[in-house]
Amino acid sequence: MSIRIGILGYGNLGKGVEKAVNANPDEELVGVFTRRDPSTVKTVSGVKAYKADDLKNMTDDIDVLVICGGSATDLPEMTPEYAKLFNVVDSFDTHARIPEHFAAVDKAAKGSGKVGVISCGWDPGMFSINRLYSHCILPDGKDYTFWGRGVSQGHSDAVRRIEGVKDARQYTVPVEAALKSVRSGGNPELTVRQKHTRECFVVAEEGADKARIEKEIKEMPNYFADYDTTVTFISEEEMKRDHSKLPHGGSVIYSGATGDNKHVIEYSLKLDSNPEFTGSVLAAVARAAVRMNKEGQNGCKTMFDIAPAYLSPLSGEELRAHML
Amino acid sequence: MSIRIGILGYGNLGKGVEKAVNANPDEELVGVFTRRDPSTVKTVSGVKAYKADDLKNMTDDIDVLVICGGSATDLPEMTPEYAKLFNVVDSFDTHARIPEHFAAVDKAAKGSGKVGVISCGWDPGMFSINRLYSHCILPDGKDYTFWGRGVSQGHSDAVRRIEGVKDARQYTVPVEAALKSVRSGGNPELTVRQKHTRECFVVAEEGADKARIEKEIKEMPNYFADYDTTVTFISEEEMKRDHSKLPHGGSVIYSGATGDNKHVIEYSLKLDSNPEFTGSVLAAVARAAVRMNKEGQNGCKTMFDIAPAYLSPLSGEELRAHML
Repeated sequence: MSIRIGILGYGNLGKGVEKAVNANPDEELVGVFTRRDPSTVKTVSGVKAYKADDLKNMTDDIDVLVICGGSATDLPEMTPEYAKLFNVVDSFDTHARIPEHFAAVDKAAKGSGKVGVISCGWDPGMFSINRLYSHCILPDGKDYTFWGRGVSQGHSDAVRRIEGVKDARQYTVPVEAALKSVRSGGNPELTVRQKHTRECFVVAEEGADKARIEKEIKEMPNYFADYDTTVTFISEEEMKRDHSKLPHGGSVIYSGATGDNKHVIEYSLKLDSNPEFTGSVLAAVARAAVRMNKEGQNGCKTMFDIAPAYLSPLSGEELRAHML
Repeated sequence: MSIRIGILGYGNLGKGVEKAVNANPDEELVGVFTRRDPSTVKTVSGVKAYKADDLKNMTDDIDVLVICGGSATDLPEMTPEYAKLFNVVDSFDTHARIPEHFAAVDKAAKGSGKVGVISCGWDPGMFSINRLYSHCILPDGKDYTFWGRGVSQGHSDAVRRIEGVKDARQYTVPVEAALKSVRSGGNPELTVRQKHTRECFVVAEEGADKARIEKEIKEMPNYFADYDTTVTFISEEEMKRDHSKLPHGGSVIYSGATGDNKHVIEYSLKLDSNPEFTGSVLAAVARAAVRMNKEGQNGCKTMFDIAPAYLSPLSGEELRAHML
């Protein structure tokens, strides 16, 4: 029997999950659930759009709900709320607030006897798993995470909020010299500025003061002040032509030792579409959440708590025969 | 309380496990167990060497036994035998015989109520896990495994068995053009010859027929005939000076797609010492085996069945706060 999946929230990530669920023969998409008027939502695959409020009447129709909201305000409310009714999966990515989010989801999911898996994707997610495996194998070592080259939506939004900016795209770019030093096992101490640069492509409003916009970007605390940032003004046509995709990626590099012998472990991603890859991780985790719940588990989990085999539609025999 | 570990078999891998256990503060090495006369075995760390036969009287002293034998004849006998008495971990790496080994260990470990984890290390092991994660995330894709540059002990042994060869070291080397094509997402079909070359360094006996040795190596079925192989004759001094280490590594590259968008996932290792890295994986898995058994699990497992958090000495809270 197929795993019946609902998607709550239908932006880029929700569309990524939709595509991923449809690519998994053992999964079936029940519907997309939205806080907007569902009659205004046309889904890519043609699956039905429902009101989010309909979910409470569909607990028998859905095995797991994938919640595709923002980490700032949506997920801290939505994931615990829906964990009272469903197995849930989210991609909560505000690292500092994970303990608090975990506690809220754990309480709700223990109360309902469901499984809630939080912070899934690639970082947090696959990158976290790789940091963990490396630290476990080589306790004497250090991990480095590089992001990019890719679009940071948070930084793009920050630039868009500046007066006179019509549209903006920000690329995070790892510094080659830093990557090289880490890959060679050099174990360097690196500042924020030494690890990444930031490239901004900006469409300015007619008559806006470009020098002021550039200055405001470069001096913005947290987002840009600690980095070497370049600002390039482009036309709306160029933005549409050259920057309409959402590529991303990066590397987790671990440099460890056993006595005098050095070992370098690297996990890297080159993604044409960040939301489609993240959505694909969520679709795999959805399968694991249902399986773990069927075995009697409940409460909040992260990808750290999921044995890799649970993510696969294949049996243990098949996995051992073909992938081990 | 420390996890009490025994090591059965004291070659390169056993020494790697010894070093790894001593690097993990929550693990304690009880002793090394050998089929040789223990009085002839001097351990690197000074830990006591026992007769393998002593193990049956030490079931209360050891929480998990790491079995460091060869896959051809040692492990198929030893792992099921000792799974009757202990939680066990091995690095069985004959891919074709894994189902049969799994069944034997599963039967023994279910009978004793212990956990036996087989085929741990990097391939099988970390490479397998990365193949699995990638296939689960992107069902539309293909995995490629490249090994090297590194010493293959099986191929080195095969050369040493040729008449007139005093010593030999064989390096497996991935072909750069193939790596490049796969990393670019090209999804090429590659023959064995297109993926790896083999470099042999040979010390010949005084007066041996080098042309015949070279021919025998290059024409050896399975080992060399399907590859572009180079043979370099060197002196004993050069062998000792330039080829005394056992470096290895490689990459698992997965090229997948979500519709028109391509994604490339790569996991790569550069290891100064193959046995010390493999031993480090075994020491981490030993921790997981004990923990899973304490929670009531038994039978045969692989690294596919181990949630990443079980490999770590840290608590769930600590892992979520620092690595997620």
